[in-house]
Amino acid sequence: MNDHVHILVAYYSRRGSTQRMAEEVAVGARSVAGAEVVLKRIEEVQAQDLLDADGIAIGSPVYFGTMAAAVKAFFEDWQFRFDFYPSRPLRDKVGAVFVTGGQSAGGRELAMIGMLAAMLHQWMLVLSGESPIGASAATEIKPIAVDQTELAEAHALGRRLADVAKAMRQGRKIMAMQ
Amino acid sequence: MNDHVHILVAYYSRRGSTQRMAEEVAVGARSVAGAEVVLKRIEEVQAQDLLDADGIAIGSPVYFGTMAAAVKAFFEDWQFRFDFYPSRPLRDKVGAVFVTGGQSAGGRELAMIGMLAAMLHQWMLVLSGESPIGASAATEIKPIAVDQTELAEAHALGRRLADVAKAMRQGRKIMAMQ
Amino acid sequence: MNDHVHILVAYYSRRGSTQRMAEEVAVGARSVAGAEVVLKRIEEVQAQDLLDADGIAIGSPVYFGTMAAAVKAFFEDWQFRFDFYPSRPLRDKVGAVFVTGGQSAGGRELAMIGMLAAMLHQWMLVLSGESPIGASAATEIKPIAVDQTELAEAHALGRRLADVAKAMRQGRKIMAMQ
Amino acid sequence: MNDHVHILVAYYSRRGSTQRMAEEVAVGARSVAGAEVVLKRIEEVQAQDLLDADGIAIGSPVYFGTMAAAVKAFFEDWQFRFDFYPSRPLRDKVGAVFVTGGQSAGGRELAMIGMLAAMLHQWMLVLSGESPIGASAATEIKPIAVDQTELAEAHALGRRLADVAKAMRQGRKIMAMQ
Repeated sequence: MNDHVHILVAYYSRRGSTQRMAEEVAVGARSVAGAEVVLKRIEEVQAQDLLDADGIAIGSPVYFGTMAAAVKAFFEDWQFRFDFYPSRPLRDKVGAVFVTGGQSAGGRELAMIGMLAAMLHQWMLVLSGESPIGASAATEIKPIAVDQTELAEAHALGRRLADVAKAMRQGRKIMAMQ
Repeated sequence: MNDHVHILVAYYSRRGSTQRMAEEVAVGARSVAGAEVVLKRIEEVQAQDLLDADGIAIGSPVYFGTMAAAVKAFFEDWQFRFDFYPSRPLRDKVGAVFVTGGQSAGGRELAMIGMLAAMLHQWMLVLSGESPIGASAATEIKPIAVDQTELAEAHALGRRLADVAKAMRQGRKIMAMQ
Repeated sequence: MNDHVHILVAYYSRRGSTQRMAEEVAVGARSVAGAEVVLKRIEEVQAQDLLDADGIAIGSPVYFGTMAAAVKAFFEDWQFRFDFYPSRPLRDKVGAVFVTGGQSAGGRELAMIGMLAAMLHQWMLVLSGESPIGASAATEIKPIAVDQTELAEAHALGRRLADVAKAMRQGRKIMAMQ
Repeated sequence: MNDHVHILVAYYSRRGSTQRMAEEVAVGARSVAGAEVVLKRIEEVQAQDLLDADGIAIGSPVYFGTMAAAVKAFFEDWQFRFDFYPSRPLRDKVGAVFVTGGQSAGGRELAMIGMLAAMLHQWMLVLSGESPIGASAATEIKPIAVDQTELAEAHALGRRLADVAKAMRQGRKIMAMQ
């Protein structure tokens, strides 16, 4: 049985921190056998990129306690440009989120919860990794914007996303044959 | 291939509204071929009930904007009594939540988000149904505590939980054989 | 002592529901003696409108579980165009939020929480009314987009905002004299 | 004019971290002229302690992404034991929250949001400090459970709470005289 699994890692980044996390999520996803991983800025993501994926990770900076407006606009494109609602073609795809933000408890969770809600609204399944909500980096309270612990969290999130998406893909195949 | 899937629907209820929703989540889950559904009050749930399940739905009333303290204490039992952390034996099980609460925007979402966070912390996968976060009933703003639309939402959530948990279970079997 | 209080009601609206709520928030605010109320679309709000206000109410539609991207972009303007951070000139002003959204538990709370977080980040004080988080209308589950109960909630929120902002304004004057 | 202001700092703590934060919130509050500060474990807080306060800060550990069940039970006591709803005698009092939790983005925000929602439900005003939602300490990711930066955040939160509660108290007096 073909055990490929397709993972899309999409991110928005102004100064590079979220991009650095995205790269590591992609590396983590690629560590799963059979994973084919596409890494793109959200500005370049087309409907087909989302439709082709079994697992989707989305990353955003945190501005003032929530995801960047640019990322929210991307989620709104899922309906307003891609016409995903109410048909919900992303149903049962697996989703995960990651963010970077300045302060310690400065909105990283709230940003991630909002992103997960957009995925759940499409009837995606969502998961997290070491932290309850997703992976994140607190970019302003330490010398290096994204440190090794945070990169490890991003790596683990990507790996887990690919692993679960693969299981889900194979399970759906089996059920379709029954 | 054995296509059974085990679903646990656990709830806390003082006046019966959350119980009514729980019953309908269970009916929805049972509508999936091969589903074996256990319906229990959280006070009666043992560690083994959780470990035996492929999918877990948990229901709570909303008090003052968040899940009932009794339900939060149940989630804390996952560590303090059942010792699920950090081993995380619920990993990859599928979770869903439902709540009942008085007012229109009176904490139902916030309660459900908190419940999903507890599941994500255990590395469960979570999903929703018609509403982005879970199924719910607004019990004080209309003549009947739980109306037909809300019961239909509960039913759909239970059905979706069993369907996804079944796919996940079969996918994991395939991957274990490879 | 001059007992004027300045209230800004700013909103984003595509189809009129959020505008309808905004109008009623403004009516509620005007019912407080001495209140001078400005009602504006967020596209027209300048930094000075915010700086002149003692109380600020902001309204948004809910799209996919969070505030509209246009409203999030408005909050980001507080820093990127208006340069409010880190000087925080809105400190101690009183804030409140309102939203309109399609479904029952479809993101109204999560949208409002994100909006309150942006206000708290500026060291504003925030309050709510009948519902814990703010005032809202569920626009898709009933024949009339915004019904009388929801308008009453908007009215009460506007009135409470003006009343509290007035008390805060007078308290600060007294403290400045001591 | 009597410029006293009464502040209650109430906390729940098992291992001392939240207590350490609470002590510093109290020190911050006491730094405001005229502030009389009461520091109590939530187990010892009576209805009168809450009714006597102009400003209330509440602290909790974070367990599995939300406030401790013991703290949620305390908020439920506001209705079930103290009978504060629907009369809402805490109306217009000023509230703030603080938490301690193990991980970086491990539920501190979500716990604080739930606590603020309980306060907003009582028609309290809420505020924050350096972080958008409240003050917090990430107790497991560094050698010292609560470090100097986190204590400074707690101190600033307490000071801001007392300052705003004092302004609010004086403003209400003026309005009552008019």
